[in-house]
This record gives sequence, structure tokens and C-alpha cells, in this order.
Amino acid sequence: MRIALLAPLHEAVPPHRYGGTERVISWLTEELVRRGHAVTLFASGDSRTKARLVPVTPVALRSCGATEAVGPHLKALGLLRERLAEFDVVHSHIDFFTLPFRRAGDPPLVTTLHGRLDLPEFFPIYDAFRHEAFVSISDAQRLPVPDLNWIATVYHGLPIAQYPVGAGRGDYLLFLGRISPEKRPHAAIDIARRLGLRLVIAAKVDAVDRQYYEDAVLPRLKGPGVEYIGETGFEETIQLLGDARALLFPIHWPEPFGLVMIEAMACGTPVVTRRCGSTREIIDHDVTGFVCEDDDEIALVLRRLDRLDRQACRRTVETRFTVERMTDEYEAVYRRVPRERMSRWTTSSAFTIDTTSSPPRDSPTTALES
Amino acid sequence: MRIALLAPLHEAVPPHRYGGTERVISWLTEELVRRGHAVTLFASGDSRTKARLVPVTPVALRSCGATEAVGPHLKALGLLRERLAEFDVVHSHIDFFTLPFRRAGDPPLVTTLHGRLDLPEFFPIYDAFRHEAFVSISDAQRLPVPDLNWIATVYHGLPIAQYPVGAGRGDYLLFLGRISPEKRPHAAIDIARRLGLRLVIAAKVDAVDRQYYEDAVLPRLKGPGVEYIGETGFEETIQLLGDARALLFPIHWPEPFGLVMIEAMACGTPVVTRRCGSTREIIDHDVTGFVCEDDDEIALVLRRLDRLDRQACRRTVETRFTVERMTDEYEAVYRRVPRERMSRWTTSSAFTIDTTSSPPRDSPTTALES
Repeated sequence: MRIALLAPLHEAVPPHRYGGTERVISWLTEELVRRGHAVTLFASGDSRTKARLVPVTPVALRSCGATEAVGPHLKALGLLRERLAEFDVVHSHIDFFTLPFRRAGDPPLVTTLHGRLDLPEFFPIYDAFRHEAFVSISDAQRLPVPDLNWIATVYHGLPIAQYPVGAGRGDYLLFLGRISPEKRPHAAIDIARRLGLRLVIAAKVDAVDRQYYEDAVLPRLKGPGVEYIGETGFEETIQLLGDARALLFPIHWPEPFGLVMIEAMACGTPVVTRRCGSTREIIDHDVTGFVCEDDDEIALVLRRLDRLDRQACRRTVETRFTVERMTDEYEAVYRRVPRERMSRWTTSSAFTIDTTSSPPRDSPTTALES
Repeated sequence: MRIALLAPLHEAVPPHRYGGTERVISWLTEELVRRGHAVTLFASGDSRTKARLVPVTPVALRSCGATEAVGPHLKALGLLRERLAEFDVVHSHIDFFTLPFRRAGDPPLVTTLHGRLDLPEFFPIYDAFRHEAFVSISDAQRLPVPDLNWIATVYHGLPIAQYPVGAGRGDYLLFLGRISPEKRPHAAIDIARRLGLRLVIAAKVDAVDRQYYEDAVLPRLKGPGVEYIGETGFEETIQLLGDARALLFPIHWPEPFGLVMIEAMACGTPVVTRRCGSTREIIDHDVTGFVCEDDDEIALVLRRLDRLDRQACRRTVETRFTVERMTDEYEAVYRRVPRERMSRWTTSSAFTIDTTSSPPRDSPTTALES
């Protein structure tokens, strides 16, 4: 198929360092190319891909400190407009930007939403476009806006060959990702210290989270047993994950997916997290990690890490979270969107909404809804 | 003609209090309706108009404290999309949002830019869409992006019957509008106090300018002769303008138009300002006000206010800045956009750019470029 992929412009595809969404888009893009699709990637100009790249900005917005993101994403739509007839399907990863863009006669459009959807200020915009075709990255992500025309949940997948299994002999817990109140590194520090366990924190600090870092994290770094090593590159991250006893992921927010959980499991490392957003869909409690109610329960289960099987973590990713499985499902989405949507989209007032049920919780892969 | 007008959603049309752009759009809308056009106004639901109103949001974003403005403006595009075939022309006042939206076969689109255009982060987006049709609200506004396809400068105009001429006997200078560093109320205070002249400040403070207000304005309010009365409604504003000896407008930013200048002149009140942005195009130096290089020159000319003719101020608005004149020019724009643009817009790669010269400085009205 001839596929247009629209990526966010905040990070390059793949990102130079942090950036889960852009990394997933990169994996999907390269796998689609490998399978023989003609893929055109609309992304920042410092992206690297075997697809045809349409560089929307010279470099990623974060790289050049740009604060204005609306203009560049609208520019992507302008560039798409000029090439629209070349595509069989348009796959947007840029939130709601593409939604008012689509016209009858256009190639089918499907939008994967990557963010949290529980913020009330966004309800009206999603409601206005709820008859467009959406993909969620977990079932939990849908809860605040169940009436969107959800056509599938497609869990992220990763190229497992790039993630060697580690032995987990580093005798430390790992906090990985982003320093922010909802990711709760301060809680990770408190829990680890309470148990006398070592904690390594590998994470970036965005400008918006600088105050939280200074107020809640920096003072806690002074004690023993906690090491903050900043943002790490891919090789270093893999090494850290493979050696960790567990990924400590004590989040408190509606996590839409949580890429770091499957990266940890791919390296054989179990995940200790809270019942928030997607975590129950990704972690099998007492098998590949622990899904806890609160920090007290986390502290409790961290004493039982030996019960978990590092091979089970790896196998979970091999069966449920590979880039090949993700790409299979997106190929099915691309085939389904045209067949189901074309007749509806030709009339503007037809608000036919699919509210089909979610796949069962214990579904081994994320089935497309039948 | 069947005209779609897209207004910003930050304020109602007309605004309940402050909001120059929304007020101008309201005047244009009602005058177009009066002339028999079929006008559809896309605006916040608390707008009041004789046109057909498409309410994009229940109330204006500022009224409900909404911080997210991208979604609502994209929703406006979705609502426009459903009605597109009903229009002969689409007139956008919502910056670059409409630019990637337009397709070959659509009604012609013309965008009036209301903001400053000198911010480098916006250059790429304007460059990408420079072949679309733009209207500037002063010639000075164009300077940072001269290569856009500017098809006209249309100065704002007001309904002069609503602005009675005042006698200017209030023995005070007036600062009117918005408390912000670029509007420089602190300088207005310093200048007035230096000369022992009374100053009345009628202005709103946005959240973003709260710090400036507290640091630079509030301490200066303690001395004598300066009265801060907050944000005023229309009737009170007219009264204040008519009684003022002069409008003190000591701005330091590329003012795109400066509606308050023509409101003052309509009430017979001259304007003392700086050579910034549009001011030289609107104020005739030594006739309807003074256009000064700096604050020292402002202090100097404030001693010569008696040289200015209040009737000349009024006549300037009657001849150059009425809503009728503005509407004449927009009607001409609406007629010209289809004729000039349709052939170009059908091919996406044709970057034919008009860089015709500005109308002469002493042009009695803002001529459309020939």
C-alpha cells in the first residue's frame, strides 16, 4: 500500500534520545518499508528512515528549542495536501490536527491517539470529530471518551532483536524516562530508601518539570543509595534495563501505554507499577511484575521480586509486544478503514458511531474489533 | 455574496469588553449583512449578530478561562468543512489555521492577519503558505514577511455614529487598552508625572502581564495625578475618550493597527504615540497627533497639544477609518480573490507571489493594489 505517516515534530523519528511516540513510529515505518509498502513519512528533517521522508521542519522542535508547535503541524498538513492523491491511506499520529482536514474522496484517514484523553478541555474537539476513525494504544486510554469511533486498540511493539536479555544482576531498581510529578520519581526514591534498595534514575527533565525536579527530587538525591544519571542514549539504556532487578514505575496518571514497560520486559526485567491507565493490560500481576494499589503495596512486593520469572517477561514481549505484531495489526487497520468508512464519509452529517466493546482483558494479542 | 467569516474564539463577537479584533469583525459582519450579503459567522456561542451564527464553542474561551485554543479553532474548520459548498468566499481571521485547509475547487479563501508578524518562529509556516491570499491591516505589518501573497491592506474602520465628538475638557491624558510591557503604561505614567499632567489609565491586565503590572505599574500608581480605573465598558470608554486632552499611546512594539487610535480620533481626541508599526500610517504628525521618536520627544510635544485640531481628528476618521470604507474594500477583496486566484490554486506547486508595492503614504483611503 501507499501509506502516509504523519509524525509529531517535537522529536526526530527516531528520537535522538527520549521520545516514546517517535520511536514507535520509527519502528512501524521501517517494518512497513521492509514489507514492501511505499511509505512516506512526514517528520522533522533530522529524522532517519528508509521511507520517503518529507521534512516538515529542518530539525525537531525540541532540538532547536522552538516553543510554537501549531504552525509546524499545520505546515505538515499543507505538505500532505499537495501529495494527497499519492496515498491509499493516511495514518496520523499528530492528535487532532488532521481531523478537520479530511474530505470526501480523500484517501482514508486513521488517527492513533498517543496522549491522555481525560483532560476536559479536549472533550469538545474530540466530540466534534468522533465519527472519524481512531486507534487507541490501550483499552484504558479510551475510557474518558468512549464514544469516539474507535476501530482498534493496537498496543505498541518493539524490534526485539535490539533488546538483549540481561541477567538482572546489577542489584538496583531502575527508574527510567521522564522526571515529572505524574511519573513520581520522588516516590520511587522514598520507596527504595525505605527498603534499603539501590535506585538508579535515568531520566530527562523538561523545562515544565524543572520546578518539580528542584522541589521534590533534588533534595532527595542527597541521601545514600540513589544515583541520578540524567538522560541516557539507547545503548546505555539497554544495559541499564538488562542489569536492573526491576523497573520501578510508580506512576499516578492515566498512562496511555508506557513504552518503557515493554522495553524492560524485553530485557527480562519485571515491572513494579501501580494500577493506573494501561498498566494492567501490559503487566501480568505476579508473573511479569506487580500491579499495586499504592506505594505501600509496592514496598511490600519489592521484597518478593524473586518470585518473578525473567524469561516470562521476555516471552510476553515476544508474543504480544513485537513490532511485527503491531505492524500486522496496523496493516489490518489500513485495510479495514477504507472498506468501512468510505460510504459514511461522503456525507458530512452522518454521525454513525461505532461503540463496539473492547477485546477481553485476557486476549493474548490485541484483536481488532470484529 | 454568500460569505463565511471565521472569527477568533478568545472573545465573543462583539467582545463583552476588551478585544479589538473581535470588535472589528463584528462591525464588518453587521455592515455586510446590512448591504444584503448572506453572511455566516463562525464564532463563540455568546456572540451577537444579525448574520447566521455557527457557534463553535458555547462561550468565548476567555470567558470560561479555557487555556487550550488549538482544538476549538480546528473544530471551527470542521464546521466550515460541512458547509463549504454554501459560500462564495471564506474570510478567515484565525491566523494560519485555515491555510492548509483549502483545496482546489473550494470557495476562494482570504486571510486577514491581525497579529504582529515579526516573530521568527512563525516565519516557516507563513513561508509554506505564502501563495495563499492575505490581507494586512497596515503596510507596516507586512515588513517582516514581505513575500506573502499580500492582496491588500485594509485598515480597520468603525461605526462613526457610535462615537460622538467630545470637547476634550477633562484636563487629563488617557491611557486605554491593555496593561503590558509593549504598550508601556509605566512610561505613560512617568511622562505624565514629569510634566505634572493628570493621567487616567483604563486597561485590562491579562494573566500573562500580571507580573509586569505588579513590578512596573502598581508601584507607580502610588504617587499623585495618576488614576487606574481597570477595564471599562463601551459607554464609559467613549466618555473617557471624548473628555481626554489626548490619548497617550507610548508603545514600543510593531503595532499591527491600534484600534484605539481611530477610536480616540473619532471622539475628536488627538493621539500622542511613537514611531512604531502602523502609527505613522494612522496619525498625521502635527495634525491629528504626534508621532515621536522616544519618550523625551513625547514629553516635549505634550506641551503643544493646543496646536492640534480636534475637528481634523474627527474628519480623518470620517474619510479614512469608517466601517463603510472598510467594508467597501473587503467587498472588493472578495470580488478580486476569485478572479485572481482560482487558476493558481488548482496547481499545488505554482508559487506565484505578488510583491506589489504599498499604496503611497498620503493615500486618502487604503487602495487595493492594482
